[in-house]
Parts: sequence; C-alpha cells; structure tokens
Amino acid sequence: MKTLESYLCGRFVAGTGDGETIVNPATEEPLARVSADGLDRAAALRYARETGGPALRALTFAERGALLKAASDAIVAHRNELLELGIRNGGNTRSDAKFDLDGATFTLSAYAELGAALGATKVIADGDSIPLARSPRFAGQHVRVPRQGVAVHVNAFNFPAWGLVEKAACALLAGVPVVTKPASSSALVAHRIVQLLVEKQVLPAGALQLLCGGAGDLLEHLGPQDVVAFTGSAATGMKIRRLESVIRHSVRVNVEADSLNAAVLGPDVEPGTDTWDLFVKDVVRDMTQKAGQKCTAIRRVLVPLAQVDRVREELCDRLSGIVVGNPALDNVRMGPVATAQQLADVREGIDALARDGRLVYGVSDLKPAGAPEGKGYFVAPVLIELEHGAEGRTVHEREVFGPCSTLVPYAGTADEAAELVARGQGGLVSSIYSDDTAFVQDAVLGLAPYHGRLFLGSAKIAEHSPGPGTVLPLLVHGGPGRAGGGEELGGPRGLEFYTQRVALEGARPVLDRIAGRS
Amino acid sequence: MKTLESYLCGRFVAGTGDGETIVNPATEEPLARVSADGLDRAAALRYARETGGPALRALTFAERGALLKAASDAIVAHRNELLELGIRNGGNTRSDAKFDLDGATFTLSAYAELGAALGATKVIADGDSIPLARSPRFAGQHVRVPRQGVAVHVNAFNFPAWGLVEKAACALLAGVPVVTKPASSSALVAHRIVQLLVEKQVLPAGALQLLCGGAGDLLEHLGPQDVVAFTGSAATGMKIRRLESVIRHSVRVNVEADSLNAAVLGPDVEPGTDTWDLFVKDVVRDMTQKAGQKCTAIRRVLVPLAQVDRVREELCDRLSGIVVGNPALDNVRMGPVATAQQLADVREGIDALARDGRLVYGVSDLKPAGAPEGKGYFVAPVLIELEHGAEGRTVHEREVFGPCSTLVPYAGTADEAAELVARGQGGLVSSIYSDDTAFVQDAVLGLAPYHGRLFLGSAKIAEHSPGPGTVLPLLVHGGPGRAGGGEELGGPRGLEFYTQRVALEGARPVLDRIAGRS
Repeated sequence: MKTLESYLCGRFVAGTGDGETIVNPATEEPLARVSADGLDRAAALRYARETGGPALRALTFAERGALLKAASDAIVAHRNELLELGIRNGGNTRSDAKFDLDGATFTLSAYAELGAALGATKVIADGDSIPLARSPRFAGQHVRVPRQGVAVHVNAFNFPAWGLVEKAACALLAGVPVVTKPASSSALVAHRIVQLLVEKQVLPAGALQLLCGGAGDLLEHLGPQDVVAFTGSAATGMKIRRLESVIRHSVRVNVEADSLNAAVLGPDVEPGTDTWDLFVKDVVRDMTQKAGQKCTAIRRVLVPLAQVDRVREELCDRLSGIVVGNPALDNVRMGPVATAQQLADVREGIDALARDGRLVYGVSDLKPAGAPEGKGYFVAPVLIELEHGAEGRTVHEREVFGPCSTLVPYAGTADEAAELVARGQGGLVSSIYSDDTAFVQDAVLGLAPYHGRLFLGSAKIAEHSPGPGTVLPLLVHGGPGRAGGGEELGGPRGLEFYTQRVALEGARPVLDRIAGRS
Repeated sequence: MKTLESYLCGRFVAGTGDGETIVNPATEEPLARVSADGLDRAAALRYARETGGPALRALTFAERGALLKAASDAIVAHRNELLELGIRNGGNTRSDAKFDLDGATFTLSAYAELGAALGATKVIADGDSIPLARSPRFAGQHVRVPRQGVAVHVNAFNFPAWGLVEKAACALLAGVPVVTKPASSSALVAHRIVQLLVEKQVLPAGALQLLCGGAGDLLEHLGPQDVVAFTGSAATGMKIRRLESVIRHSVRVNVEADSLNAAVLGPDVEPGTDTWDLFVKDVVRDMTQKAGQKCTAIRRVLVPLAQVDRVREELCDRLSGIVVGNPALDNVRMGPVATAQQLADVREGIDALARDGRLVYGVSDLKPAGAPEGKGYFVAPVLIELEHGAEGRTVHEREVFGPCSTLVPYAGTADEAAELVARGQGGLVSSIYSDDTAFVQDAVLGLAPYHGRLFLGSAKIAEHSPGPGTVLPLLVHGGPGRAGGGEELGGPRGLEFYTQRVALEGARPVLDRIAGRS
C-alpha cells in the first residue's frame, strides 16, 4: 500500500515504521499509510527559517501574491482529481468536496489580489504618519514587516484543502515560510496539493513543507520569531499553549477550537417569508453539509416560543429527505463522519445532549445507501429539543462534531438570546435572522463580544447569502474563549499574525521612504 | 505606621497580617505597610464585571474620553504631592518623578483626545464596508466592541504612576473595568492616585479597583472575557502564561518583559555633529535616568570600531559628572535603585557582564550624597566594553536593571548591527543614529522584526527628540520574544487588546447603522 511521504528540506521522504492506515470512511477500504516516524522535524524548521524565509522576504507583496495565483491555478488544473480524493478519503459528497477545494482556491485568489493591491513593497504601512512634536519634522509611523521565523500550521481533518491553504495563503503572502501538518485521517488531499505545487515548482525552496504523520517534537523547537496556528480540539489547543517552547519564547499561538455556534430566529419572522426560509435552509445545510463536521456549523437553534412547533416540523420534514450513504453515489446527500473515533464521539455526544432535552428527529435503523453491510462511519441527522428555561449545560458546553443540532426555545427578546448564546463562552460565528433592525442591533451588541463573526440573515440578502457556515477570506475567522481566542483571514487582517508591527520614530521624510510613500 | 489600603468592591479595605514594610530606598526609612492578605479578590473581579463593566459600556467613547480628562485633571491638581511621594518612595530625582507622573497625565490626555475623536458611539468601525457579492447589498463590516470582562493589570515598580495609568487609559476608554495591582515596593504613588480619583468620584463604581499587596489567587479567577496585562520580569510573565485559568479560557495575556535595547551608532556619524551628540546624550540619559530602571533603557551600545575610543571617552567623561545620592537633594542627578533585592540583582548582573568584557567606567568607593552612612540602595553608573567579535552571551541575554550599559564594537555594517541586535531575541525598542538614509533603511529592515519600536536619531530631529527611552502614547510599546510578545498603547491600537473584533455579514444598510455610519 502507498505510503504518504512528507515533503521536508526540499525532498519527499517517508517515515519509518508501519504508521497509521487511512481509509475510505464510507467503506473502510484502506487507502494509504501515514508515518512521520524518524523524520527530522527540527531540520525542517531550520530549513524554513534559513532557506524559505529569506527567499520569501526577497520578494515584494505583489510578487508573493503572484505565487498564490500560480498555486491556485495549479490546484484548479487538477480539480477533478482532488475532488475525487476528497470523496474517497473524506467521506465527502461531491458538493462537500467542492466546498473544501473551491473554498481553498477562492481564498488563494483573494490573497493573490491583496498582494497585487499591496504592490511592489516589502513593508506595509499601518496607519498614517503621526506628528509627535510641534514641528511636523519629528513623526511616528507604524509599519508591519515579516517575522523572521517559521509558521507551523496544524490542521483539522475536516477541511484538508481549505485548512492547508487558508493558513498558508496568509503566511506566504506575509513572507513567512510554512510547515503544514494535515490531520492524518484525511491527508490524501493535502498531500496531493503539495505534490502538485512541488511538481510545478510554484514556490521558492523552503517556502512550504509538509509533515504527514504525527507532530512529534515539531513544536518543541519553536523560537521567538516563530508562530503556530492550530485548528482542532480545545484540549489539543491547550496542550500547545502549555508547551515550554511556546511559553519561554512568547511564540505567537493562534487556536481555533470548539464552538457552539448559535442561530437566532428573530420574533418578527413569520413562516413562509424569505427570512424564515433562509433560516431553515441554513440550519439544515449546516446539520448535513460534511455530515455536520464544520467548526462553523449551527449547533444551537434559538427559536421564539411561539414558533417552536412550526420550526421543528419544517426541520424534521427537510431532514427526512436527506439520503445518507456512500458519497460516491450521486443521490447521496450526506456521507459518513471521518473516522471510527469520530463516530464514537458523535454517538456519545448525541446521547449526552439528548439527556438534557428530548430527541425530536432521529433514525433508528439507518441503512446507508451504497455502503458495504456493516461498514462505514455513518450517523443519521439528529435534532434535539430543550425545554424553555432548561439549564441545558451540555448543549451550551459540548461541541458534538456531527449532523446534530439542538432547538433552544427562548422568549423572543434580544436580551434572552444574548444571555443564552453567551453561555457558550465564546464562539466562531452566530447568526441572527430578522428583518427588524432594532432587534438585530440589540442582538448584535449582546452577541458581538463572544464571537469572531456574526451573520445577519434577512430577506434583503437571502438570495446572495452563503449562510453562516461559510468562512470568507475577507472576513475574520476565529473567536474568543472556548473558540480558542484566535483570528485568521479577514483580508489584510490575516497578515497581522505573521508580521511584526513596529513603531518608527524619527524624521518624517525617512519614515515616508521606509513606509513606501516616497 | 500607615497601612496602604486596597480599594475593592467600592471601599477601601486593609489586608490582615503585618504585610510588607515599604521604605525610602535612599534612607531605608520605613514609609508604610502593604498587605492584601485575606482580601476577596474573586469578589473584586465579579464587582468589576457586574458593576464596572455595564457602567462603562453604557457610555460612549466620547464620554469615556471625558472621564480620562477628568482623571488627568484630578492628578495634575495634586502634582507636587505626587512628585514628593515618588521622590520618597521611588528613589526618584524630581526629574525622574516628573518623567513618571507627567508621562501618566500626558497619556491620559492623549486617550481623552482619542475618545473625543471616536465620538458619540459605542462601536468602533474597523475598516470599510466590504462587498461580498456582485450585489452591493450583501456586505461585510468589521467592528470592535468592548469585551465583557475585567482587565487585570499587574505593574512593575519603576513607573508607579505611568504604569497604572497607561494601561488603565486604554482599558477604560475601551469600556473595560480595571483591577490594578502596583508593585508593593513603590505603591505609595499608585495608591494616592486611586485615592484622589475616588475622592473626586471621577469614575463610575467598579471601573477602577486597586489591590495593594500580593496578587494571591487574583489571576486564578479569570474567565473567557477577561484580559491580563503584566509588566515585569520574564519569569513572572511565563508564570502567568502557564496559569490553568489563562490556558483554559483563552484569556488574553499581554506581557511586557525583559529587553536588551540597543543603540546603534551609524558609520557615517562624526564626533561633534548633532547626531553624535544626540547619541551620547541619549545613552547617558538612559543609563542614569531612574538609575537605569527603565524597561526601554539602552543596554547595548553598538559603535563602529573606528569610533569606539572616542565614544568610550565621551561617555566616561559624562558619567563622571553624575552626582549619585539622596534624590531629595537638588544637586543629585541619580538616586538609588528601588529595593535591597534590586541592588543585589544589579550588582550580580554587573559582575556577570564584566566577565564577558572589561569594566571601562565604574566607581570603587561610592559615597552617595545626603544618604545616612551605610544606608540606601545605591549603585554608581557602570560601563562595560566587549571586544569586537566576542560572543558576549550575557550582554545579549541578561537584562541588568540598573545604571549599567555595555559598549559593543561592530564593523559598521547594517548587517552586522542587525545580527548582533537580533541576539537579544526580541526587544521593546532599539535606536539607530545616522544621517545616511540607506544605512538607516537597511538597519530598520534588519531590526524591525525583533522590536515594537525603532527610534531613528538624526540631526533633523535632534532638538525635538525625547530619545528612545520615552514611551509615547501614540506609538506602540511592547516587543516580540524575550520582551514578552505584547503590545500596548499606539493610540487606537491600544484599544485592540480590550475589544473583540467581530466581522458582521449582512445587508449593507444594517451594517452601516451598527457601525455608526447612518
């Protein structure tokens, strides 16, 4: 069986030992082996700092933007092959696989455009010139420059293409070389993307390295100019924050972790309206897209008491039409979860959620379409409902990473919605569906401190909206507290993590020249 | 003897037990006792979150700016009394005490002006509206809102007024209540400032609390909306980063720690020129102001080989004119260090530095003016010199927090300067003295990734410049790596730490209204 090689120090290398076998989660057919045992991770970090960093920093932002465009083109040229890999290795429907892969190339293109807009400069001006004395001659100017370290990216299993690319786009455009580690279980897509970029020699040597397999001692060698960006469980995020290397060298850490994203239906929204339909569609999409394995998926559905019956009815009706099975089949709308472990976790999580409320939608005898008898990590969509006023600790504290969501009735006031949502202690995104601007404004002020993004669904945008579950490159992605306290993307904001902001203080003409104004 | 009371939950309260005795470091005369034993720190945090936070968030930025102006006025009205306290409790000369206190009120005024400029709004727009679809109707808008927690500020002994105020100004303007903890040894000034603000009822209840004495379990009760900003040793900074509360709740931490600030003399600068004189003046000021106890003080003096003899000569000449003694005397130019412990640390540090090079200026039989025989924590200025090419690990790694600096000869190239400065592994500020723009530009690019601020000294700004050791409210203060990885001040940038940036995604007119554009 094929072993996925890592790409370190300018060559593809295989780990020793048997490693881990990765499979098609719909059939449990083995696809490849992954092992990084015995690979010299410290050498990879040095190679990035000594070879990749100088090469990237020798380029302007516009030139680095052009590299991203070339990377996007290289991926697009193999789109079908990569979608097939996503379907086989990720349990993705074709639509799920597109969401991952097209999201990746869209993000690359957006950062390529940003690079072009920043232009032929190596320094980003941060704000205007600041007069520091009565004489206009003595001034301040903040600028951003690339950090002279390496960016280590540790990604989650659910977005093998997008996860790699959204982080790498920001780092590479900023001028910082990357060592990226995909989750082993779904590594085929990330591996193939790196292989394509290497074959086509898109990036300078040392700019992008790939570690397939365990992180090992990778993070123990981080230094004061390095950064680490992690997407995954809160528990692993905490382990990274506790690392001696990270603490000793003030290594910048970005964690994107658990999130109990909420969707709040406003009290003004009537059944059958565009806003209502958008809400129902978004909830169902988030429950079933990628089998609910999106960090942005709606986990808590806040519905005014008066509308709970109707919302439940519509959701159950739509969920009953979802065909679960092998995503290689065209009629399948939802595939399996990614691994046997995920399946066990999701089942256990659903049981825990159900103890706080009651199951209002479920399938007792799931027969996945097109899967071998007894094989595959399938779980049917599940809807739980809480009683109004119930404490519901589990629903506010435990992210169940599967096709499962909970109806949380509320009295219909922005205050109560904010109080309930805040129980999640910080999330990536929540959404408010309402055409009543006063309600939206109140709800936004209440919810905003707890989120990185708020999606405001209304009739006016219903036809344009990708829904709250889609992360866009121009908007920040991350959230406080339980969500890890991180921030990625957001157009130019995504470069902040990889750059050092420095205040320059001196004679204005000199500052203008350094900031690229003269 | 007077016991310094804390101000918690709306009243002044004394800790139990004998506590710590604080003294006049020039005479060792006891001044007060400090104890926070038995005080309910968790209750103070709750009071801030439940009473102070809502009261501050009910105000607009302009209204909060007005509070800062009133605070500045209240302090200025007692300027002389506070300067006297600084002289007695801080070992400050009058000029040192002004540097601390006037810096504090200047910072308050700067943030008061920023509040007025932000205006009658509760939300800060972060960037422009972002089109998200072909239709201009569907758009994104980033905004910043106050975090709904408490800001815990742990300050260093060297700037009791400025340290309290520069952090509090940012937090309070952002709308976040503060619990501030001064270093015990110099707490008289901070205590009196809070007393004045309470007497004049400048701030809403719960907006500013004071803990005089040990931190105890204060930081163990931090939650996901809270932040902690610390200034002090790298070792304590690391302890804070390791706290379970901090890691579990992704508590935002700002650390401002050790820094081996460098001053680089450019190869073009000739003796007797304005730039040369500025350089020499800045080095001597940084060595002796506050007895070298500034986190921004120049510790490493990089001089081109050809100029080392002349620089050494001028520095020694100027240092020999510094009268060391009791700062209550008018002719004293430099007071003692803050505590017996500091004195021991500085002496040990000087010995360690001297082992890497040679002592070129020192005083073997210091007789401090106006200090009782054998009393006071005095140390005379010390200049060490390294050989060119020496490894000099200590000078690049150990911050000796006293009137001590090291001459580091270099070949006069920007590359060698950058390589030497980078050995400090991240600092708050370094300075480049040169009138050769090409040299400055190269040096800036080399040094910038390792700093929060770069001071560019030149003939053009010589008459306006406060030197690199002065932190200005409009420029960021902080640095990567060894310096703690933090960022404070910088005008509006100083609000970032206390606010949550959230991307709003929806119909443009709604976003414009929330962002205060319509």
